[in-house]
This record gives sequence, C-alpha cells and structure tokens, in this order.
Amino acid sequence: MDWRTSVARAAAALGLPGERVADAWRARYQPQLETVRSGEREWVVLDVLHREALDHVLAELGLELGAGERDELTLAWHRLDPWPDTVPGLARLKRRYVLAPCSNGHIAQSVALARHAGLPWDAILGAEIARAYKPDPEVYRASVAALGLAPGEAMMVAAHDGDLQAAAACGLRTAFVARPREHGPGQRSDLHAGPGVDVEAADFLALADVLGA
Amino acid sequence: MDWRTSVARAAAALGLPGERVADAWRARYQPQLETVRSGEREWVVLDVLHREALDHVLAELGLELGAGERDELTLAWHRLDPWPDTVPGLARLKRRYVLAPCSNGHIAQSVALARHAGLPWDAILGAEIARAYKPDPEVYRASVAALGLAPGEAMMVAAHDGDLQAAAACGLRTAFVARPREHGPGQRSDLHAGPGVDVEAADFLALADVLGA
Repeated sequence: MDWRTSVARAAAALGLPGERVADAWRARYQPQLETVRSGEREWVVLDVLHREALDHVLAELGLELGAGERDELTLAWHRLDPWPDTVPGLARLKRRYVLAPCSNGHIAQSVALARHAGLPWDAILGAEIARAYKPDPEVYRASVAALGLAPGEAMMVAAHDGDLQAAAACGLRTAFVARPREHGPGQRSDLHAGPGVDVEAADFLALADVLGA
Repeated sequence: MDWRTSVARAAAALGLPGERVADAWRARYQPQLETVRSGEREWVVLDVLHREALDHVLAELGLELGAGERDELTLAWHRLDPWPDTVPGLARLKRRYVLAPCSNGHIAQSVALARHAGLPWDAILGAEIARAYKPDPEVYRASVAALGLAPGEAMMVAAHDGDLQAAAACGLRTAFVARPREHGPGQRSDLHAGPGVDVEAADFLALADVLGA
C-alpha cells in the first residue's frame, strides 16, 4: 500500500503539512514496535500505537489538532491506497495461490484496507493472530500454521529485506517486490532484493508471471 | 453449507453408504467438541477430530477403507457445497456489512471452503483464533474483538438456535436462517427461530432484504 501518499493526503485535508506528518509518523513506527518486541509493553493493536505516535508527532512539529480529529486522522491507516499493480496482481495470484497478509496491521485494520482497496484476501493473518510484531518469528510461524502449511509451502512477499530475511529464517520462501517510492522521491533503502531471496519481481503482475499465476 | 449432501457424495464416491456415513460422522461432532470444551483435551483443529471420528464411524458401520482414503475423505469437510442462496446472499450482504465466519471450522478449512464455494469473507474468525469451540463464549468474544467491534455492533447469523443463544448471551445481535434439510428429510430440530432472536429470515437473500443490503 502507498501509505505515505495516503496518510499525507489525509493530514493535508486537515490543514497539516502532509508529507512531513506522514514521514515523522512512520519514523516512530519501528521504535514503537520495538517496545512490544522487547517485552517492555504488552502487545496492542497498531491503532493504539498510531494514536500515541500522532500526539508526539504533532508536538514535535508544533502543530495543533483537536482530539476528535486526531482519532479520525489515525484511521487514515485504514484507508491506504494500493499501488497500481497491487489489486490486478493479487487477483491473478489468487487464481493459483491462497493469499493472506502477514502484516503488522491488526485484523480490523486489514479488513478495512481490503474493503477500501479491493484486496482479495483469503484470510487475514499476521501480527494479531500471533500477538507479536514482525520480525518476531512467531508472526511468520503462526501465519503459516493457520493455513495448515509447512513453512516451505508458503512464500513471504515483501518490499522490505528485513522482513524477508526473518521469514527465510523461519523456513518460508521469499519474494521481493521493490516499492522504490514508498518513502518518497529520496528513498535509498530496499531498492533491490537482498542476498538469498528466492524471487525478485518488479511488481505484483511480474510476480504472477514468475509464479505461473 | 450443505455438509450432509457433500460428505455423503464424497463417501459414496469411495463405495461407502454415503448418507449413513455422513450422519454417523456428524453424530460424533458435538461429543468430540465437548471433550475440548470440558478441558478433557487440548484444542485441536477439526481435521484431527474428523479423522479420529471417521475411524470410529467405519468400525461402527463395519466398513473397510484404506488409511490414505480415510485421509482423503476427511478433506470432504473442506469441500462442502453452499446452499443455493448462500453465495448470492453473502455478496449482497457484503456491500453493506463486514462478513466473517464465526464457525467451529479452523482457518485452513474455512479458507478451503471459501475457495471451493466462492464465499466472499472479509476475514476468517471463529474457533481457531479463540482456540475454543462454540458455544464457548470466548469464540464469539474473540471474533467480535478481532473486528474492533463492541458485541452489540455484530450480528451472529446461524441455523442453530443454541449457537444464537450463546451469541446473544455475549451481547451480539442474532439472526436465524433455517436450513430445514440440513439433517436430511426427517429433520425436526432448528426449523424455527428460538425465543429472543432479533431477526428470522428464510434464506440469505431474505436476510439481505431485512438488513437493507
């Protein structure tokens, strides 16, 4: 999903500097997840983390926003737009494969995203069924187990090499699809697949080609 | 799902008396679930319970079947056909409502059923995310919580009054859709809604009418 464009647009609609808010918000994401991964706090859904982070971001940037609007803006993460190839690519992949997100998003958020964007998931897996956050191996293991599969029968598809390395360490096959504008025009990370990745594809349509779907 | 016709057909294809096998198999279902609900055994997926029950059923009926065929026949429960109104009714309901099975089936089985029959679920909830079996209240509570809803914002739709009574006790709204041939031509139970049910509809299309979808 193109979270940066989508979140920036929602922030701008409230009179905020959209891209600055989106980038500052996302910058808090991994440190927040780390508080759960480290055991410092119990697992909570991303809505809670996003809402807390928004308060910090607005204070940091010296921006004003009412509490109701903060709650509403937090739900921008439920209405992210897909990349242009996402939906047609998933539709082709679904003909041959069972598709499920193995995301750090929770079930309610993933359902909202799927309904917003038309993502044809077979099930919603990932962080919530494991009550853990990637790259905690339990997220990959629980997701594969929920499908009744051995790890080697599943493939993790991601735009982030760290995600794929963690999945591979659990025995999953891996596919890298770059999203070179995910972080905006200056992105320098995750432009190419890391070592050991099974498949690299330019987008989800190319992935469907490679996987015979 | 019309489990009786579907399972009977799969059994008959292996040379077995289909309806007798289907009925005897289903008769073991609630007693098996009760061993989990009572704490006598740990939660296991339905595939395990179905496979164990099949051995008993075949012995009881004096029928022979190889182990590989027993494994294969167990998967008949992954390939149940829908009632004629199920898919068009769900398609209409999905326009307005988030749809998820709150079934005793596990995720892999529910995904297989959905792909077999074309059920347009938004998520797969139910027994596995709670690691419990209905009517254990934890199954309803976990399913509603996974959607980020309060119980009164969700509606349990079922053909079994006991299921609806348990859901209502957790605060869910309830709808009864009779399946008067579920157990074959002689069915005498669950022909009408029990007391206190919010909505009764003849089928899923009528339910969509009632719910404005």
